[in-house]
Amino acid sequence: MRVLIVFAHPEPKSFGRALLDRSVQTLQSGGHEVVVSDLYAMDFNPVASGEDFTQRCFPDALQYDREQKLASQRDAFTDDIQAEIDKVLACDLLILQFPLWWFSVPAIMKGWIDRVFANGTVYGSGGMRFDNGGLKGRRAMLAFTTGCFPEMMEPDGLLGQRDVILWHLQYGTFGYSGLEVLEPFVGWSIQYTDEGKRHAYLDQYETRLRRIEQETPMQTHLLSDFAADWRLKPGIEPRTAGHRRPMLKD
Amino acid sequence: MRVLIVFAHPEPKSFGRALLDRSVQTLQSGGHEVVVSDLYAMDFNPVASGEDFTQRCFPDALQYDREQKLASQRDAFTDDIQAEIDKVLACDLLILQFPLWWFSVPAIMKGWIDRVFANGTVYGSGGMRFDNGGLKGRRAMLAFTTGCFPEMMEPDGLLGQRDVILWHLQYGTFGYSGLEVLEPFVGWSIQYTDEGKRHAYLDQYETRLRRIEQETPMQTHLLSDFAADWRLKPGIEPRTAGHRRPMLKD
Repeated sequence: MRVLIVFAHPEPKSFGRALLDRSVQTLQSGGHEVVVSDLYAMDFNPVASGEDFTQRCFPDALQYDREQKLASQRDAFTDDIQAEIDKVLACDLLILQFPLWWFSVPAIMKGWIDRVFANGTVYGSGGMRFDNGGLKGRRAMLAFTTGCFPEMMEPDGLLGQRDVILWHLQYGTFGYSGLEVLEPFVGWSIQYTDEGKRHAYLDQYETRLRRIEQETPMQTHLLSDFAADWRLKPGIEPRTAGHRRPMLKD
Repeated sequence: MRVLIVFAHPEPKSFGRALLDRSVQTLQSGGHEVVVSDLYAMDFNPVASGEDFTQRCFPDALQYDREQKLASQRDAFTDDIQAEIDKVLACDLLILQFPLWWFSVPAIMKGWIDRVFANGTVYGSGGMRFDNGGLKGRRAMLAFTTGCFPEMMEPDGLLGQRDVILWHLQYGTFGYSGLEVLEPFVGWSIQYTDEGKRHAYLDQYETRLRRIEQETPMQTHLLSDFAADWRLKPGIEPRTAGHRRPMLKD
């Protein structure tokens, strides 16, 4: 496999960095090709703007996703974006690794998504999304550390259920783009763990990655499950495993 | 009321800007004091780093939230962050206005949250979160435009339920900080609407803002609903209105 790890952590001496290093070693020793985009080290610009395009089709007023669509057709992305798009398209497995900040990815990683997951490339017109998304045939997973305890992300936990918190990333960003989503790897409450527990997390991650090719992605819906009104067709049950679909009642 | 509107849009000629202008006019004419943080215009830095502090307590290795905690005690934030913290603490109502990008806020706004919603200020040790959060007594709402249709964010819709998609922002970011959350204002599928519909959205937003003080926040849980194990206490039903709590079954 070709694996792209996008990594966002401001501290080179962090546990997150140790986790990254272990994952690179493990995947390489398993014969996989690994590319790392270390966003802090790259000083990656996370702010989407009109300067992201070498030519503008609508120079009067920026419509970012329309410009992305045309840039996808005309190779008009700036080099920093095109380099990341090329890495994504070349990979079989995408790992986003980060500390969970405010129930999501750090801003530098959100900006990587905003700028690199471009209209016309990872999704687009003509039903190019979900199982027909631009990144179909590839897999993705989140690998993150938290300041909270796992009980807090249970269905009746303080913060709400893990896959609800992660919905915007796993079902939204990954799913919409056509990526098949593997269970996240979570290093819980890293600041409150001792050295032994941290080593155990490194070993757990290694064990997981050694068998990553054999994993079954989480279940999700197919585009064909939805009718022309964008609602689930009659008789199709909201999936209850993997990407569980919350059906909230009033 | 003192209203802080944090605005993230790269295009001054956008509908989002028109929505912002209408909201400022409406609130000011209603006698409210309005402050706008226009993140693109401010060239706001969204990337959290060790340079966010005028002194470091742990200079060897950055633990961002620990530094935030100490910076909260010692007034050691850089000026750009402190200015935003002051605005947040001075407001009665916080509005985040943005185009929905990848099921969340644009990176420049995520970075505003990462850097401004600081440990020791908006949440912290000693149970300073949710109804005891640092921003308690204040209200917040999301105001955003989408590229999707409202049917897509119904419980059985293509993208999943609106409040599930927004969980990380409404329950997570706002709720955790002690903010009471008002229903979001959504301008649906803005790129696919005509001039008439856009004017209708501006009028709807104005109507809403004229009565915003009378609105009842969405229901959510109290910290005291949770036991020492961070799970809902026996007998306490997950709320089903407002911040509905998804209880996903395997």
